[in-house]
Amino acid sequence: MADHKDCNALTLDTEARPDARRRLLSIEGHVKGILRMLDDDGVYCVDVLKQIKAIEGALAKTGDVILRAHLKSHVTTAASRGDVDQIVEELMGVLKYKT
Amino acid sequence: MADHKDCNALTLDTEARPDARRRLLSIEGHVKGILRMLDDDGVYCVDVLKQIKAIEGALAKTGDVILRAHLKSHVTTAASRGDVDQIVEELMGVLKYKT
Amino acid sequence: MADHKDCNALTLDTEARPDARRRLLSIEGHVKGILRMLDDDGVYCVDVLKQIKAIEGALAKTGDVILRAHLKSHVTTAASRGDVDQIVEELMGVLKYKT
Amino acid sequence: MADHKDCNALTLDTEARPDARRRLLSIEGHVKGILRMLDDDGVYCVDVLKQIKAIEGALAKTGDVILRAHLKSHVTTAASRGDVDQIVEELMGVLKYKT
Repeated sequence: MADHKDCNALTLDTEARPDARRRLLSIEGHVKGILRMLDDDGVYCVDVLKQIKAIEGALAKTGDVILRAHLKSHVTTAASRGDVDQIVEELMGVLKYKT
Repeated sequence: MADHKDCNALTLDTEARPDARRRLLSIEGHVKGILRMLDDDGVYCVDVLKQIKAIEGALAKTGDVILRAHLKSHVTTAASRGDVDQIVEELMGVLKYKT
Repeated sequence: MADHKDCNALTLDTEARPDARRRLLSIEGHVKGILRMLDDDGVYCVDVLKQIKAIEGALAKTGDVILRAHLKSHVTTAASRGDVDQIVEELMGVLKYKT
Repeated sequence: MADHKDCNALTLDTEARPDARRRLLSIEGHVKGILRMLDDDGVYCVDVLKQIKAIEGALAKTGDVILRAHLKSHVTTAASRGDVDQIVEELMGVLKYKT
């Protein structure tokens, strides 16, 4: 079995990139916003927690954009390419973080 | 695109079945165990919570068994079969529950 | 600090019990339902995954019933009882499973 | 029941603040790192997914810092303060995001 990471074909889809980039820039701004909240002496814990949960949701959606692109471009083509075991175990490893 | 649910090929792998069955029988016993805990007047909330978390972990592992079988048998072959969009959106729908 | 597990007061609230019991009985039936699905040669992986996710949701709701009772009866009273550190670390340990 | 948000006592613990701040600054840098990854034409989807999962883990730990401070300073004292229902429902709302 070839190491599929050396294969130029297995790169992140060009349509998914600007979407992921836009979402990550928004997340970066959101993180800076929480840092500003922490400068406020009167900030309430639960308000900080809500913002952290909101970022977790935004990150999960960014992950979905990448995951969908990976499934479409690389996972559904694994049988014809011949690296089924490698691509499945790698994907299971990443999805496990979700549980 | 053919409705892949009518396709006999897309059924749960015969090797994954006994593994999933064994895990679900163990989960059934575990649920009965928590029901018995609730009959004990002196049961402590956190001990019940720990058992519920343990079952959640066991269910997640059962899901992994099914998911791995699905990826290997049906998702990695979608391009050659010709139902990529259908199989990807369906899978994204199920994985979203995990977040 | 007294070991709060020896304290009779820290037992699962009597109102939460029948609710948790009812939910767990329903979950037990749901697990049996998945076991029957696995006996069907033509069962589709994604349909099994959906049922597993449904049970995970039902278990999480059962956990919420117990957690709310624990917070109300035992966590919010920890300062007056004098076991704050113990009750907080124990709760953090259980909540960590959720991430 | 008093609106506890008007109460000066319910502000984020001063010890938890620098810890949360340090973690969020590190997360901000991590997000910038993923943005740079996306500029690389040859980037592999799964490598991006792994970084997103790593940030999710770092955010969850930041949330734990805030949650522990909230439990110690505000939740365990609710009975003596007299806002048990309010503080419990608010906390359940935030924890639900975790499931």
